[in-house]
Amino acid sequence: MSRGGETGPVPASPDSPFLLAARGERPAVTPVWFMRQAGRALPEYRAARAGIAMLDACRTPDLIVEITTQPVRRYGVDAAVLFSDIVVPLKAVGVDLDIVPGTGPVIAHPVRDHADVQAIRVLEPDDATWLTEAVTTLARELPVPLLGFAGAPFTLASYLIEGGPSREHLATKAMMYAEPALFAALLDRLADVAAAFLRVQIDAGAAAVQLFDSWAGTLTEADYRRHVLPHSAKVLAQVADVPRIHFGVGTGELLPAMAEVSDVVGVDWRVPLDVAARRIGGAPVLQGNLDPALVATAPIDTVEAATREVLRRGRSAAAHIVNLGHGVLPSTDPGHLARVVEVVHEGAADEGSAEGPG
Amino acid sequence: MSRGGETGPVPASPDSPFLLAARGERPAVTPVWFMRQAGRALPEYRAARAGIAMLDACRTPDLIVEITTQPVRRYGVDAAVLFSDIVVPLKAVGVDLDIVPGTGPVIAHPVRDHADVQAIRVLEPDDATWLTEAVTTLARELPVPLLGFAGAPFTLASYLIEGGPSREHLATKAMMYAEPALFAALLDRLADVAAAFLRVQIDAGAAAVQLFDSWAGTLTEADYRRHVLPHSAKVLAQVADVPRIHFGVGTGELLPAMAEVSDVVGVDWRVPLDVAARRIGGAPVLQGNLDPALVATAPIDTVEAATREVLRRGRSAAAHIVNLGHGVLPSTDPGHLARVVEVVHEGAADEGSAEGPG
Repeated sequence: MSRGGETGPVPASPDSPFLLAARGERPAVTPVWFMRQAGRALPEYRAARAGIAMLDACRTPDLIVEITTQPVRRYGVDAAVLFSDIVVPLKAVGVDLDIVPGTGPVIAHPVRDHADVQAIRVLEPDDATWLTEAVTTLARELPVPLLGFAGAPFTLASYLIEGGPSREHLATKAMMYAEPALFAALLDRLADVAAAFLRVQIDAGAAAVQLFDSWAGTLTEADYRRHVLPHSAKVLAQVADVPRIHFGVGTGELLPAMAEVSDVVGVDWRVPLDVAARRIGGAPVLQGNLDPALVATAPIDTVEAATREVLRRGRSAAAHIVNLGHGVLPSTDPGHLARVVEVVHEGAADEGSAEGPG
Repeated sequence: MSRGGETGPVPASPDSPFLLAARGERPAVTPVWFMRQAGRALPEYRAARAGIAMLDACRTPDLIVEITTQPVRRYGVDAAVLFSDIVVPLKAVGVDLDIVPGTGPVIAHPVRDHADVQAIRVLEPDDATWLTEAVTTLARELPVPLLGFAGAPFTLASYLIEGGPSREHLATKAMMYAEPALFAALLDRLADVAAAFLRVQIDAGAAAVQLFDSWAGTLTEADYRRHVLPHSAKVLAQVADVPRIHFGVGTGELLPAMAEVSDVVGVDWRVPLDVAARRIGGAPVLQGNLDPALVATAPIDTVEAATREVLRRGRSAAAHIVNLGHGVLPSTDPGHLARVVEVVHEGAADEGSAEGPG
């Protein structure tokens, strides 16, 4: 049944359900993975992380390998996603920041002018030898493809400008509107950092990448296209040798723009996948989109029904990678996620080829 | 020019631009008001509120009248909105709560079971004599229509279940999914409270009402229609003798559902008004939708251009009431809001009748 149950590691195959779907095909088994699957919902994650700061864990090869692998073992998901954080490449190029538990990333010296932008140097492979080491091991040992991961320029810029997490992103928008050249210079630099971070992962064996633009949904489509999309496009153009997933939250109106520069569009839980497919047009490949709060709070039969509904609506897409519509919430019962994987793999059997999913 | 500049109070006329637009007509002057226009962006508001707790201010007739009137004087907006808070009717029926500065509403005993629901009694006019007094005075003295205001059942329920503001609304969704009968009983009771709170305002002279469902945007359309819309519909059906505005944030996918039970749909800044009109279908009356962060942070020429763009896209609607796409942010320069009003009223003159807007 689940691929995680296979004995012994096998290299990720280009015919894996995840990679087939990411390229727009319909594999016999519909693939499924979960954003933040390597995280606090798992007791084995909490054990591995005990006493270790997030930024240290993200730069320790053994821990990266263990934590990235845990959800593959536990759930039998069809892809692993690199255990990291969007600010890790900034830390790697010397930006003075920390991840404060209960708060999030905190930047010591927020970006205010062109000198601050120039001070952010582009990431070189030597800045992240731990990353090469971890990804090389993962690509060799994992039974499923490894998905690389980076934060998008706008979301990284938001942290650098605000100095930390923000609800309204007022300092970010102030720079975007009042100092558009400075804002563009910052995002251009961050595009190079993100692309280099993804390139290290691809060169070490990552089979696909996801660009996370957590905060893009705070923008109108016009502002997104004018001030943000060109920089995300720059990142994604540099990694076009692997399938590229593009995701943000609250991006219902941005989906067509995000689809223009990527291979797979991640959809949050608010937009039904058939609506997303129509809105994007053509034959998009979609990823998503169970409400993580539903998976965390609803009875198991409601979770199962919602999973089947997501599968059903996902048939409107050219291909579909099942996921949540945002990250796994820490209070989620891992048993619920395991059941989602079973339902997705069973559902694929119902409509699969005569040979079945295995 | 601006209606706020007229000498002496006149009663709100059914031919006021705001009420004409709310009924689906196109007045010579496009009406404009701002959510949270009576609030912290105004120095005269901060002076009036100095040393007075929010819940006290919301139940003091003289202060309600003064604060509600301030933005009409300052900006020349086409509607006043009652100075209140969505938890005020809950306080009026004896729910033990406070509004904590910097946090928001805090509920002493979160709702957990049917006994807790039964303990919330329905609001009677005698519970809010200060409201009748304030609205009677405002309706007599204001030069523009007074818009009444209540929080929608789902948003009120969210505060009562979570015990305060929440990001993920996990306790709320847990009750919705796991105890749907209890959840429905709570929302049904809150619908009666909200309707009674609006009825007091209408009976004292409010010319229209807005139902705020701040958190509805966290739900899928399917869950919204199943668990929430019937209760909002119950509120709005009881106040159908005046125009009814229905608003929430992040509700791009819910707009058609929200339009089914109201006269005017408020649109947040993420959905361009022409897109909203197409998505709803027919000939909807729309309210919105400048990004409040743009108004708070962008140079004045950008604010002006964005206002003209909102006016332009609003022509796709049967009628359009200009507003922000969410509340005025405290850091907003009142001069920017005054300029938005001027641009809206000038814009209407460009396309108005031969007699002009006055």
